[in-house]
Formats: sequence, structure tokens, C-alpha cells
Amino acid sequence: MSSVIQSGRISRVVVSGGTHGNEMSGVFLAQHWLQDSSELHRKSFTAEAFLANPLAVQRCVRYIDTDLNRCFSSELLSALSSESDPYEVKLAREIYQKYGPKQCTNFLIDLHNTTSNMGSTIILFKGDNLSLHLANYLQTNCVDPSFPFHIIQYDLPKGETIYLQQSGKHSISLELGPQPQGVVRDDVLTRMRELVNCSLDFLDLFNQGCEFHSFETDIYQTISKIDYPRGEDGNIQAFIHKNLQDKDYLPLKPGDPIFQTLKGEDVLYTGKETMYPLFINEAAYYEKKVAFVLSEKIHCSVPALKLQN
Amino acid sequence: MSSVIQSGRISRVVVSGGTHGNEMSGVFLAQHWLQDSSELHRKSFTAEAFLANPLAVQRCVRYIDTDLNRCFSSELLSALSSESDPYEVKLAREIYQKYGPKQCTNFLIDLHNTTSNMGSTIILFKGDNLSLHLANYLQTNCVDPSFPFHIIQYDLPKGETIYLQQSGKHSISLELGPQPQGVVRDDVLTRMRELVNCSLDFLDLFNQGCEFHSFETDIYQTISKIDYPRGEDGNIQAFIHKNLQDKDYLPLKPGDPIFQTLKGEDVLYTGKETMYPLFINEAAYYEKKVAFVLSEKIHCSVPALKLQN
Repeated sequence: MSSVIQSGRISRVVVSGGTHGNEMSGVFLAQHWLQDSSELHRKSFTAEAFLANPLAVQRCVRYIDTDLNRCFSSELLSALSSESDPYEVKLAREIYQKYGPKQCTNFLIDLHNTTSNMGSTIILFKGDNLSLHLANYLQTNCVDPSFPFHIIQYDLPKGETIYLQQSGKHSISLELGPQPQGVVRDDVLTRMRELVNCSLDFLDLFNQGCEFHSFETDIYQTISKIDYPRGEDGNIQAFIHKNLQDKDYLPLKPGDPIFQTLKGEDVLYTGKETMYPLFINEAAYYEKKVAFVLSEKIHCSVPALKLQN
Repeated sequence: MSSVIQSGRISRVVVSGGTHGNEMSGVFLAQHWLQDSSELHRKSFTAEAFLANPLAVQRCVRYIDTDLNRCFSSELLSALSSESDPYEVKLAREIYQKYGPKQCTNFLIDLHNTTSNMGSTIILFKGDNLSLHLANYLQTNCVDPSFPFHIIQYDLPKGETIYLQQSGKHSISLELGPQPQGVVRDDVLTRMRELVNCSLDFLDLFNQGCEFHSFETDIYQTISKIDYPRGEDGNIQAFIHKNLQDKDYLPLKPGDPIFQTLKGEDVLYTGKETMYPLFINEAAYYEKKVAFVLSEKIHCSVPALKLQN
């Protein structure tokens, strides 16, 4: 690998809010920027915002028929369309047509909230070094101790897509929390707004030829998902243990309690390795059978970055 | 007024959870007590639990057709029933038949959560001195600094009913928060469980002839509701100001900021009197056009209480 990564100019930047209709920071910000996008202007580009799932926003629900942010597989995007397709599958095709690779979206920022204590989380995909540099720029230039900064890396098999953010050549999702569904909190919205603005600043500096030094950082790579203990009827039998609640990104060791039943019994973590739990007690994941996500903490070295000549 | 209130023996106590299907502490507790009610047994009575809105619980939503906790008016309860009635109107009639005055429910405890920073809130109705004594007993005997204790009094015109808890002769609602909708937090659930148990202890002591001294306390009486600033399209134009967020029960003075627009403009409180805001930024109240509720703080003296001979 070269000691300097060269990456192409960023000409089209898109910011999506309301991919989940009850995650309110992104909903409010996208609606605001649709009325007045001046805040998204930079010297070298003009970013545009869109509201990804307007009907879900209107009803203040995560989705109408199915989770939009799981509808971006090549199978669904390329399948023959039918009137009976779920609303979000139709929506995903529209979004992909409008903002996907054919439209040369170089950078996509997708805005999310979580009920978990995830602070300022950036989700990016393995191999996207431009996004890693952007994350490092945020980590250095956009600090807020109330919302500690973390980077999650998703490692999908090459070419596999699921998520809206993958419509962009490069992309991040911002996951800010904790915030209840259906609520807009000033502190969370303000933090998200700062992170978007600082991201746009980074992309503008990059376009202007600024070189970014190599760096080292910790990232969290998702490994597996842990469901709640359930009875034969499928109902949840225990809830997140008080020792685990709000402890996203902190080490979970073998034998640590992870759930407690209403009879007061602890359920222990039986894994053999220390892992780092994410999205602990996220409201939207109860139905997905996910109590929390396990991740590994990886230390990585990222080469310097500059604009391709 | 006599210096000692005499009140009849409490023979039937009912605890309802899941009146709103996504307020999870009550949902989990009611489901647990339906399987094993031994925790609700006392010397002088056996309390029973029920799940008020099972379909809403199953779908993890507040309600299916309309808010169950606004369906207990005498008009709705006594109207001719029709197949096309909203699901919750039918449900309210069933609940009223099963647990209402004809079934001599002397005490009803209705379990709720809120996304607002309402700590341990007890809601009771004006004139219900037994419930005021119960609240005072909780305030003295069931302390948890993480969830400060407050009493809200609703003052409806005589005979007017709206809420599920009014199916009982005496009643309280427990409103615990903050907790996101669709999430069960150990700390909130544990606190609610303690409050229910301590309430049952009080009722048992009362039945056994224990006399409760007169006392003085502060209660919050709801006065009016404040909506978000809205545009001509009905969309919200500003959100709860950071100075007001999480400040439930703290004084709001004329001129204090209450909202902020996305352009950074403050909206000030224009009332003439200091008031006490409640349910600030409750997720379920966006659609009800309530950003927060204004209340007056009232100091009141409550006479002693004993069992009627």
C-alpha cells in the first residue's frame, strides 16, 4: 500500500435525514435544510439534504412496511418492481435512482438517533479511508465531552449492500444518542449539526488540496448480535442488567452480568473473549431480536490522504 | 371538615400496566404479575394485575386507534356500542365492566412511563385524601434520590371522567421517567416496582387500622398546556429550549426561554406568573399539541386518616 492514499475530488455531497421517521434530530435538520440549504454551502461544493422516508416522518414511526435502512441490497434494488412491493422497497429504488452511483454522489451522510448511550458515533465501511480521515478530523476538531466520539466499522463481503448510506461512493452514518424515539432534544440536535458542518468543512479542505497526515485510531468492528432471553412464546424473559445499561463501548468480560429476570436472577455473558457492546437497549432492535451488538476493538493505522491529481 | 378523615376498608386492589403499549415498565411488571401474583399479596387483600391494552403491547405502540387513557368518559362508556367503534373504546368498556364501580375496585394503580424527566410522579384526583395519604407514605418511606418524588393533582369538574385510573374509587397513576418508549430500563422498572409494593404496604396498614397523622405537602395542580410554535402547515417550527429541557417541576418565570428555532432564535415565556412545567418534551404529546404542561405549586394541609368503623 502506498504511504499516501489519493482519492478523487468530492463534487456531490448528500445529507439524508428521516431514514427512520422517528429519529428526530435528522428529521428536523433535513426539513430545515430543505427550506434553507445555505448552511450546507462550501467553497468547493454545495451539499443537498433530503428526507428519506417522508410518510414514516409524517406518522412519526421508524417505517411503514419494512426498515428502509435494510432495503438497499442489489437483489431488492434490481428486482422487477410490483405495485405490491413494500413502501420502503419502492422508496429505496427511488433514492438509489436519485442519489446512487449513476448520479455520482461522492459522499453521503445519513443521520440517525439511538436510544442507546452511543454518544457521537460514526459508522463507516471497511476500506473507506476517506471516511476514516473524515472521522479522525471530527475526533480532533469537533469535541464535546457530553457525546464521546467513537468509530464503528462495518465489514460486509465485497460488493454487498444493505444500507442507505451505501448509495454514496464514500459515506458515514451519524448515530447520536441517547435520545428517545419521537423526541427532539436540543443537545443532541446541536451536536449532530456541529458534526455535519465539521464533516463538510473536512470535505471542502480535502477538495482544496489539503493533505491529511497518517494517524492511528481505535475502531469498533461489529462481530455478532445478542438477543434477549426469550420464552417458548417468544416473549422477553429478562431485561438489560443495570451493570450493562448505558455502558456502550466499555469492555464486557466473560462472566459479567448482561440480563436480569424479574425474579432477580442474573444472566451472565458466556463468551470467551472480552468484547465491546454497542447499541445496548436500542428501542428499535427489540423486534429485530437484538439486545446489544458485540464488537471488537481494533487499533488501526491509516495512511496519509491527499487529493488525486 | 373533621380533623380525622374516615375512609372505608380497601378490599379490591387492581394494578394496570400497558394502558399505553410502549410504556415498558408497567408492561413488563403486569405481565410478570399475571404469571405470578404472589408479590401483590398482603395480609388484608390480594391485589390483581392486568394488561390494559394487549394489542398495543404486542405491537409496541401507544395505542391502536385512539388513546385508551382518554376513553373513560361517561359519554363513551354509556354510548350504544357499534362494531365500528375504535378498538380502545371497546376496550375501555370491557375494562370498566371488569374493574369499574360495579366490581367495587376500591383502589386502582395505573402504571405509566414518560420520556420527560418526571422522576417518581404520582397523579391523583382532587378530593381523594386516601390517595394523598398514600402519596405521603411513599414520599416518606420509599425514597430514591435518582427519581425525586412529586405529586400532581388533576381537578376535573365533579363526576367528569376521562382516565382509566378513575375506574377505581380511589386511584393513583405512577408516571416514571425519563425512559424512551419501547425500552425497559432496570432502574426505572425497579423504582416502579418499589413504589407499587410500598403502596400496597400502605393500603394493608390502613386496612389493619393504622392511623395516619395529618401532614402538609406541596402538590402541582395542572392549569394549561403549551403547544410548540407551528407554521401554517402545522409543522413544528421550534423545539424545547436547552434551558427548559429536563427541568420539570422547576419554576418557569416570565421571560424565560422555552423554545429555540433552528435559526437560533429564542421564544420566551410570556405568561405573567411563575409556573411549574411538567411533561416537558414527552414524545407522546407531540401529536396532542403539547410541548409541556403548566402547573401551579400548591401547599396543602391534609387531615389525619383512619379506617371507618
